[in-house]
Amino acid sequence: MNAHYPAVTVLGLGSMGSALAAALSDRGHPTTVWNRSAHKAEALVARGALPAATAGEAVAASPLVVACVLDYDALRTVLDPVADTLAGRTLVNLTSGSPEQARETAEWARSHGADYLDGAIMTTPPGVGSPEMMFFYSGPEPVFEAHRPILAALGDPLYLGADPGTASLYDAALLGLMWAVLTGWLHGTALVGAEGTQATAFTPVAVRWLTAVAGFMTTYAPQVDAGRYPGDDATVDVQIATIDHLLHAAEARGLDNALPALLKATMERAKAAGHGSDSYASVIEVLRGPSAGG
Amino acid sequence: MNAHYPAVTVLGLGSMGSALAAALSDRGHPTTVWNRSAHKAEALVARGALPAATAGEAVAASPLVVACVLDYDALRTVLDPVADTLAGRTLVNLTSGSPEQARETAEWARSHGADYLDGAIMTTPPGVGSPEMMFFYSGPEPVFEAHRPILAALGDPLYLGADPGTASLYDAALLGLMWAVLTGWLHGTALVGAEGTQATAFTPVAVRWLTAVAGFMTTYAPQVDAGRYPGDDATVDVQIATIDHLLHAAEARGLDNALPALLKATMERAKAAGHGSDSYASVIEVLRGPSAGG
Repeated sequence: MNAHYPAVTVLGLGSMGSALAAALSDRGHPTTVWNRSAHKAEALVARGALPAATAGEAVAASPLVVACVLDYDALRTVLDPVADTLAGRTLVNLTSGSPEQARETAEWARSHGADYLDGAIMTTPPGVGSPEMMFFYSGPEPVFEAHRPILAALGDPLYLGADPGTASLYDAALLGLMWAVLTGWLHGTALVGAEGTQATAFTPVAVRWLTAVAGFMTTYAPQVDAGRYPGDDATVDVQIATIDHLLHAAEARGLDNALPALLKATMERAKAAGHGSDSYASVIEVLRGPSAGG
Repeated sequence: MNAHYPAVTVLGLGSMGSALAAALSDRGHPTTVWNRSAHKAEALVARGALPAATAGEAVAASPLVVACVLDYDALRTVLDPVADTLAGRTLVNLTSGSPEQARETAEWARSHGADYLDGAIMTTPPGVGSPEMMFFYSGPEPVFEAHRPILAALGDPLYLGADPGTASLYDAALLGLMWAVLTGWLHGTALVGAEGTQATAFTPVAVRWLTAVAGFMTTYAPQVDAGRYPGDDATVDVQIATIDHLLHAAEARGLDNALPALLKATMERAKAAGHGSDSYASVIEVLRGPSAGG
């Protein structure tokens, strides 16, 4: 074993697991791979990875075991029979799931004498291996620090704290932001597209606009922490008046207005709660409680 | 009149109009200012701007007239009595409104012998004067080109085409994107905040994530133009499965789930329309038509 390139095992060779194994193997780590359907290992083995006949053999091959399978049920199906082999090793679980599932799995690993980190991958498989892409980890900090150099082969490893559920919580929060951004962008693209503007013409402008919006987020974040939302630049009242331009323009072009209508209703609730002359950051007050209708 | 710094008039001195006048005056343009309530001109005059006693006097002072008032009704109230004075001059209208209002006002200006550009300001008043901030303009290209050097004092002038309604349409589309982003960010902030993470800790990660999401938009834009949405990286089916983690995590923490619930329902409609194995870009197909419920 090379001290600079410790051995690592990857369990699960779907498109994401395969990308993880390839990044580790390409970096020089002796990388043992296993998948329920063995043929998925073939391309990786041709590239230099080491095949394991069973999950137990794979776990036994390395002090660090990275798991990336379909869901937590699949994870336990694979790991329960080999739990004893995990003792004294570290399990880094990159399977998508909830904070509660991450905490349960951390407890399970601890009960079998294994160290545990829960992680979340903030990119698609083609982005794995790029130092720009964020990988979140939560669990015991010494465990993270011990394996940080290996994890850096996958992307930029960010440590979020000792609670193993935090990586999943950030993952859910950022995916929610992603779906909101993509849907808002597609709605805007449909709006300008109704007058003949191409998506490829509008999108660079939208991408540039995101930089300005990120500036608003950075301005508003301390307001959220302080619980005070001075509306110096633009108030909720002004936004409510302005969103009618969008609703009318989109309706006149036959678009689905469910998203802007919901955004306006959310602003109206902030106004009704007394935040009309506050900044948009005050909308968090209504998001913290369940909606009247839901 | 200095040839490098032509005279300009600003009508309307609310917080945005005052920022426009200050940027022009500070750059060295002889800047005549007028507001219905004259006291709003005082700070600008102290800074070097030239006061006008009436709107007609203000319009007569410069070949280029920039208007930024409350809405299009206020604009016509100011301009109708001085329409004859506008003949031979250029009106740049930065008042917020709809594409239809912009087109009507262009027609009105043309009928009075004035050139017309409609514009939209993609920043808050403190951002006026920064070359990073986008200002949209639409109308006759020669008129835009003639005044581009002056308009560059306000921000980065982007020309969107001859249809005077286009600047307003982009404005509405990008504000819709902004509200979606801010609401998605606040929902995510509330989610991680329920476990004690500060907004100021989460937001830099969210801002960095926007860069990755912008990459997805750039990947998806040509799919929208082609009307084909290959789901190479992540399909609508996968997103639908994943958003349940967010819904459950947010519900368990007492959050309002109206936004993620709507996003999931929108994805489900894309799936029902046959886009389950397509990329998220296919969601534009359901946004192009009115919703079943709305």
